[in-house]
Amino acid sequence: LSSVLQRGRLSSQDKDAARFASSLEQDKRIGRATVLTNEAHVAALVKAGIIGRTEGRKLARVLKRLEDHLPYEREVEDVHVLIEEEVSRILGARIGGVLHTAKSRNDQVSTAIRMVLRMELLQLSNQILHFVAELVRESRKYRKSFFVGYTHLQPAQPLTFSHYLLAIGDSLLRDSKRTIEVIARVNLSPMGAGALAGSSFKLDRNYVARLLGFKGLVENSLDAVASRDFVLESLAACTILALDLSRISQDLIFYSSADVALVTLPDEFASTSTIMPQKKNPDVLEVIRARCARVTTNFSTAVTTVHALPTGYNLDFQELTPLLWDSMDTLQSSLRVLIRLISRLSLNGGRMKVGVELIAATEVANTLVRAGGFPFRQAHRAVGRAVRVALESGVSLGDLRKEQWESFLEAELNPRVLEQVAKASDLKSSFHGYKTRGSPNPEEVDRMRRARVREIALALRSNKHAETKITHSIRELNRITASF
Amino acid sequence: LSSVLQRGRLSSQDKDAARFASSLEQDKRIGRATVLTNEAHVAALVKAGIIGRTEGRKLARVLKRLEDHLPYEREVEDVHVLIEEEVSRILGARIGGVLHTAKSRNDQVSTAIRMVLRMELLQLSNQILHFVAELVRESRKYRKSFFVGYTHLQPAQPLTFSHYLLAIGDSLLRDSKRTIEVIARVNLSPMGAGALAGSSFKLDRNYVARLLGFKGLVENSLDAVASRDFVLESLAACTILALDLSRISQDLIFYSSADVALVTLPDEFASTSTIMPQKKNPDVLEVIRARCARVTTNFSTAVTTVHALPTGYNLDFQELTPLLWDSMDTLQSSLRVLIRLISRLSLNGGRMKVGVELIAATEVANTLVRAGGFPFRQAHRAVGRAVRVALESGVSLGDLRKEQWESFLEAELNPRVLEQVAKASDLKSSFHGYKTRGSPNPEEVDRMRRARVREIALALRSNKHAETKITHSIRELNRITASF
Amino acid sequence: LSSVLQRGRLSSQDKDAARFASSLEQDKRIGRATVLTNEAHVAALVKAGIIGRTEGRKLARVLKRLEDHLPYEREVEDVHVLIEEEVSRILGARIGGVLHTAKSRNDQVSTAIRMVLRMELLQLSNQILHFVAELVRESRKYRKSFFVGYTHLQPAQPLTFSHYLLAIGDSLLRDSKRTIEVIARVNLSPMGAGALAGSSFKLDRNYVARLLGFKGLVENSLDAVASRDFVLESLAACTILALDLSRISQDLIFYSSADVALVTLPDEFASTSTIMPQKKNPDVLEVIRARCARVTTNFSTAVTTVHALPTGYNLDFQELTPLLWDSMDTLQSSLRVLIRLISRLSLNGGRMKVGVELIAATEVANTLVRAGGFPFRQAHRAVGRAVRVALESGVSLGDLRKEQWESFLEAELNPRVLEQVAKASDLKSSFHGYKTRGSPNPEEVDRMRRARVREIALALRSNKHAETKITHSIRELNRITASF
Amino acid sequence: LSSVLQRGRLSSQDKDAARFASSLEQDKRIGRATVLTNEAHVAALVKAGIIGRTEGRKLARVLKRLEDHLPYEREVEDVHVLIEEEVSRILGARIGGVLHTAKSRNDQVSTAIRMVLRMELLQLSNQILHFVAELVRESRKYRKSFFVGYTHLQPAQPLTFSHYLLAIGDSLLRDSKRTIEVIARVNLSPMGAGALAGSSFKLDRNYVARLLGFKGLVENSLDAVASRDFVLESLAACTILALDLSRISQDLIFYSSADVALVTLPDEFASTSTIMPQKKNPDVLEVIRARCARVTTNFSTAVTTVHALPTGYNLDFQELTPLLWDSMDTLQSSLRVLIRLISRLSLNGGRMKVGVELIAATEVANTLVRAGGFPFRQAHRAVGRAVRVALESGVSLGDLRKEQWESFLEAELNPRVLEQVAKASDLKSSFHGYKTRGSPNPEEVDRMRRARVREIALALRSNKHAETKITHSIRELNRITASF
Repeated sequence: LSSVLQRGRLSSQDKDAARFASSLEQDKRIGRATVLTNEAHVAALVKAGIIGRTEGRKLARVLKRLEDHLPYEREVEDVHVLIEEEVSRILGARIGGVLHTAKSRNDQVSTAIRMVLRMELLQLSNQILHFVAELVRESRKYRKSFFVGYTHLQPAQPLTFSHYLLAIGDSLLRDSKRTIEVIARVNLSPMGAGALAGSSFKLDRNYVARLLGFKGLVENSLDAVASRDFVLESLAACTILALDLSRISQDLIFYSSADVALVTLPDEFASTSTIMPQKKNPDVLEVIRARCARVTTNFSTAVTTVHALPTGYNLDFQELTPLLWDSMDTLQSSLRVLIRLISRLSLNGGRMKVGVELIAATEVANTLVRAGGFPFRQAHRAVGRAVRVALESGVSLGDLRKEQWESFLEAELNPRVLEQVAKASDLKSSFHGYKTRGSPNPEEVDRMRRARVREIALALRSNKHAETKITHSIRELNRITASF
Repeated sequence: LSSVLQRGRLSSQDKDAARFASSLEQDKRIGRATVLTNEAHVAALVKAGIIGRTEGRKLARVLKRLEDHLPYEREVEDVHVLIEEEVSRILGARIGGVLHTAKSRNDQVSTAIRMVLRMELLQLSNQILHFVAELVRESRKYRKSFFVGYTHLQPAQPLTFSHYLLAIGDSLLRDSKRTIEVIARVNLSPMGAGALAGSSFKLDRNYVARLLGFKGLVENSLDAVASRDFVLESLAACTILALDLSRISQDLIFYSSADVALVTLPDEFASTSTIMPQKKNPDVLEVIRARCARVTTNFSTAVTTVHALPTGYNLDFQELTPLLWDSMDTLQSSLRVLIRLISRLSLNGGRMKVGVELIAATEVANTLVRAGGFPFRQAHRAVGRAVRVALESGVSLGDLRKEQWESFLEAELNPRVLEQVAKASDLKSSFHGYKTRGSPNPEEVDRMRRARVREIALALRSNKHAETKITHSIRELNRITASF
Repeated sequence: LSSVLQRGRLSSQDKDAARFASSLEQDKRIGRATVLTNEAHVAALVKAGIIGRTEGRKLARVLKRLEDHLPYEREVEDVHVLIEEEVSRILGARIGGVLHTAKSRNDQVSTAIRMVLRMELLQLSNQILHFVAELVRESRKYRKSFFVGYTHLQPAQPLTFSHYLLAIGDSLLRDSKRTIEVIARVNLSPMGAGALAGSSFKLDRNYVARLLGFKGLVENSLDAVASRDFVLESLAACTILALDLSRISQDLIFYSSADVALVTLPDEFASTSTIMPQKKNPDVLEVIRARCARVTTNFSTAVTTVHALPTGYNLDFQELTPLLWDSMDTLQSSLRVLIRLISRLSLNGGRMKVGVELIAATEVANTLVRAGGFPFRQAHRAVGRAVRVALESGVSLGDLRKEQWESFLEAELNPRVLEQVAKASDLKSSFHGYKTRGSPNPEEVDRMRRARVREIALALRSNKHAETKITHSIRELNRITASF
Repeated sequence: LSSVLQRGRLSSQDKDAARFASSLEQDKRIGRATVLTNEAHVAALVKAGIIGRTEGRKLARVLKRLEDHLPYEREVEDVHVLIEEEVSRILGARIGGVLHTAKSRNDQVSTAIRMVLRMELLQLSNQILHFVAELVRESRKYRKSFFVGYTHLQPAQPLTFSHYLLAIGDSLLRDSKRTIEVIARVNLSPMGAGALAGSSFKLDRNYVARLLGFKGLVENSLDAVASRDFVLESLAACTILALDLSRISQDLIFYSSADVALVTLPDEFASTSTIMPQKKNPDVLEVIRARCARVTTNFSTAVTTVHALPTGYNLDFQELTPLLWDSMDTLQSSLRVLIRLISRLSLNGGRMKVGVELIAATEVANTLVRAGGFPFRQAHRAVGRAVRVALESGVSLGDLRKEQWESFLEAELNPRVLEQVAKASDLKSSFHGYKTRGSPNPEEVDRMRRARVREIALALRSNKHAETKITHSIRELNRITASF
């Protein structure tokens, strides 16, 4: 449908087929970056003497205007053709026809995607860091708030809610790190690779890269246009983050279910049923959980698309880009919702349920080891028997009598030890007894919290720095093209 | 955000969270079906005497008007609430408030999806059948057109293009069958299952089902709202179809590549490069190939979403529906493009390439068996050696001398057999010699072609019949509600 | 490495590469079926007069012996070559070399996989049916056993455990149907399609098909060797079944968690912790849940493998077969464990938890509609407010006073209605009031249970019939080859 | 089935269920690492004074012996229980029962997986680097060997084979980097996190970490046992590498197909057909392509398994570990085969096919720009027309006459420019004209090759260094436990 490519090799395209294959709608997201890429290319053409300063000036001015005003309503196949067509419409075919010298859509599109993606990754990292900051902030409130730790969806050991929030936070900090590490390979310039073989025009690829804020080149020209591992590893980082968000959602859905009732969701983030008046459903969390599933399969889509594709640009690549933006948008909006939800959660003091209070068992066994001198395995077995009896007779571990313990242990028990056992079965203060690094006792949690505050600040600063470098480069590009 | 559910159990929702979780945009596709579901429900309420004819008439009239005029611009969470709100706005809370008696969004949404899906599946089947019809029609032209059959991407044996087209057609006929088989489980009514437990109002579920054109019920009320296997098997059928379309695309990309040059793509379905003037790229086919990858992972998304979800309605289900429509739309548009592309393909008579012409080898070996009485394995080994020598000396199998053959065979060769060997290495007519059922000889291909024409006609008629039954039911529903 | 294919076209293979690509290990599962395929082929060669009865007899006898005694320790690439080599070793190259006349590994391997797969699918269906039979049997015990129905993991409405078990059963019956439907396309014979083009020997493909117990042919010879949709749809059926099993596992994990405590897992199907003596972990169910995830991605592996493969046999196909067996084995072993686990479950009478008992709310609202004449939406809102107050003041719905209800309803309330409201909030008998088809009242559940018993018996009989037909065919094959 | 856990909380396990859920078979891979973990734990128990030196010595000696001699034939659920049982069997319950003090399977298993995985990742990186080294070495031979560069599977521009090999190499170098980056998060110690809450015994987690060669801790105890992102990111790195290997396989399958015939596969890495004697099938490459699909879905399996799992150890994790080893083994074996295959490839000088030789077109257009002063778009259109005419009349671009060019250009053409155009259409030397960084001209390729040699050496050295540090730590552990 575009005029620039017509009447050469092929007769005109079938309209429906062209619409079917067109990427213009989805190119909007890389429109501005593509114009900037053209500007940097013009600067390089001028520098290399391939075009004159006058031509350069004319091209640069029109491009500058197009940065935010591309006429997407045109029916052309993609943004690259749209830009060249628009430039030719304004400046005439003589000057406009020069724009594509020594470049190709293949290097351009990879360049533009990378330019947008590096910023999205930085923003995603920032958003993760803000979420962790919120978790850390909230965790201050819950330093001594008893919480049930689960394994196998069964109550396991006493924690504090603070410790839980920091555990989640730590996993998200790794997500942020992965996100940032990816940028090192995203932020390299393919420009100048042409269609696959570079060019017989002597263009300075490093100059273009610098003007566009890249850290270096994807050097080999074939590799530069034919590789999409930068998309895949971005989607992989998104996938792992999505899994962490789905886990948080799952946790909160479970913790807030009427049976468990450890936390209460804020009304504003729940909804009721049209038929069951008592319902308070965790709608938002379920939607996050399900959307995160889609983020994970965006990666799978990319994998299936790329698997066994031959080396070289293939138009299949076009279908990868929307996956990136969909993953980014879904994660950012999920994070936005979660940040606000987490700050309005409330913790239920909570009546302790029969089976749940038995989570004191490990500490009771440890006490038998420490105070009673029993081997751990013997203590473990004895407490296991005690649990059985406690469940059958509906009493708690602290209520069991000396004779009972002695029969469980198949050994005698010092009454002093029995006292300590009773103390160890008091759940609400038990987490104070944890001594190892990283455990839920409040002093250790405080220490970790303070360390995370510093870590987050450092990471945000480093992200800011990376952003600034990029915007400075673009400013330099503007300065140069304005000077022609 | 909706008013019907406010001021009961929960305080009002967070606007952003509500927007985030809202399904209204994607509900558009089931809007009309949801209104019809409401109409059938009203009919059942009247029949059961739960509401009077007057109330029934008022509700039915407003609903009738809403069928194609739902105000989607409202900010509510979904189409169910939208309808109830709109009915209440027009008829007042007293009558509008009656509409949701004995029903739930849970049974309604599954009902509406099934109503739309059964039609989409029928249309998809029709479109597949039209594509196969086109393949069958095209195959008439190519009854005696030599074509290279490949295995392992290496030239294997001579076929005709007709035979290839019918092979593709047969795999697509199975896709059509799968699509239709799924309908048997899709076209069952969950209505009346309520939220999960049915209702204490005595509603006639079969009556509702009949009015909505269903073949029967998803009987168990919990199963009716909690199961989404009908979505999964629809997506699975789509996935396998997508793989078949990706295969066809791959074939045509390969057959039309300049090296292979068996077919020529129509110019209108190809595009050139912005930099390489000689290029004729199979853009449209590459896009189909890549979009088909997404169809396959729509299934994976549904799998990951549903895996380990507890029994009962969960809002995660909401995210499955768009996957269905995306797969349907992608397949339908891909089929539309392929139907037109296939009818404009042209076959290259083609110069035979050196390695390619060796595909006569199997027939040469068979000849040595039949005419020469050699065991197949011995003949096979001899021809293998002949191929080596032919490749090294750049001659064809028919050019090899008696002495050479005798050394390959490690046996004497009757000159009469040698003649037949020479004949067997003539590629262009070789496919005439195939004798087994389903093989590429033109008579057998003709027979198959005629059988497929009949099969397609039958299948289209059966689909038409299924459609008619559904539209008749809806007409009956309209008649009944109009009669109140 | 094999001798039959050496010294022809290629010099000998690299040992490591050959081992890497060899499928012999995984061919064991299709070994017997491949021998049978050879026997049927010999019968057809004799029938067509391509070989004599004497040769036929010799070949048949050796093959018969090999049926269960293939020497898998040989180092050859696959079972096809193994068989030919072994036959040639015993009968000499002259007769052994005849065996491969007019056939190919391509048609043979697809034939053998289909032979094994059809039996596995029948067995899988049987196993599903046995599981449903167990669910139905168990459900008799729990006709009047109150159970909590959940949506969004929140208590929703009262059910019976019987109704829950039948809901699961119904979804599994659909799995069985899907499994059986697939067989219609699996149980077709590719034999005689050769490598892709049939054969110039006049073989009777229908004869071979009949002897091997097939219902018909995959007719088009290219389609017959190049299509693997039968593998994909088998894996798709497995995937949906796997999701149903993962759902059951998830349910039981949740229902048996100490917080929820609706059911108690049998000790023998749980395990404890090495450190936490009180733990009773649902290990087996977690493993089923996770293995089911692998079953679902076996399908994805097949999808990614097949996507964009060109038409024709490609060795990639070899990697699909183990996915089939892995899915079959995982599902069968999971079903075996679940059948025994379900029969040993015990239901907890259970103390009702505060939030949970509010599931009477829907019935209370319905009562306000039926007895009080309020529009449902008004009743729904009133009960919503009642729930809030009940939760805040820790009372149950039945305890609320007339004035409170009147303020919730913003209307007067007849004392008679108030009595009915109190009755409606009695949970334990509530399910008796459900009247719609498929709902949990015991009479309706009894009716469904009896219907399912008949359905299962019918399905098992039909499967038995299908098996018998196949074994009769194979017996006929044995009779014929023995008669040479 | 194990005795250590029996007779406590639960009655004994169902044998089949226990076998079903047992991980002992797959634990073999982490057996040695688990024993070492126990040794380090004993060292820490001694250091903390929780057990005496005498007990420590006894335990350490037995463990030392078990390092390579675990009795896997025992029927127990996993390697952790196996070790404790074996130690208790030898030393008696009194001392053996001490071993599990202050630790859990949850922290142990994650520790052991990480210990094995870090080494596997290092080895995988080494193997990748060796493959790239081979590519770089081979590329020396082909500095001036004309090769066809493809886009969209259509001949695009002339490259050298050397340039192609280096392009592949560069993408693999990024794979190696990703593999190494993952280690930073893998090589952290969870030991001391216990089941999820750390311990009330004062153990020095950093001491244990150091003795086991870790760089640091997974600090938060809940995070340490509940997170598997280290598995996911390892599998993600494997997935992207698998896609690169599938791409190389796809390339070689295409380049070696008889139609394209750019390269010849070594006979030893191909196989023939049992029926078609001329076939030379790229079996090994197809198997790599298909196995790489499985590597990618190993990641998907992990995703589906982990999606929406609640925080805490769940036995589902057990099923993740085999995915890791399967991916590692598949990639390592594929790389081993590819390294040897690549070194035996031969390049075909090759007769140029009609459509293929038109890849000179871009350079012809560039020449019209440089020498003729035409705008690129005009030149591009003119060459497009020239291509059409050349294809129709079967001549090459260099054969077209001045008048023809002038009509294509719609402008006059200087005869001097015509000469240059003719020169530009000479393919075999064209790549010498490329001037940009990263392009295929031999000087630039030489420069890149030398740089890669240095990069590889550096990376291998760094990997060596990391390995050494780990083995030194383990030696220190041995020294300490021997000193008790």
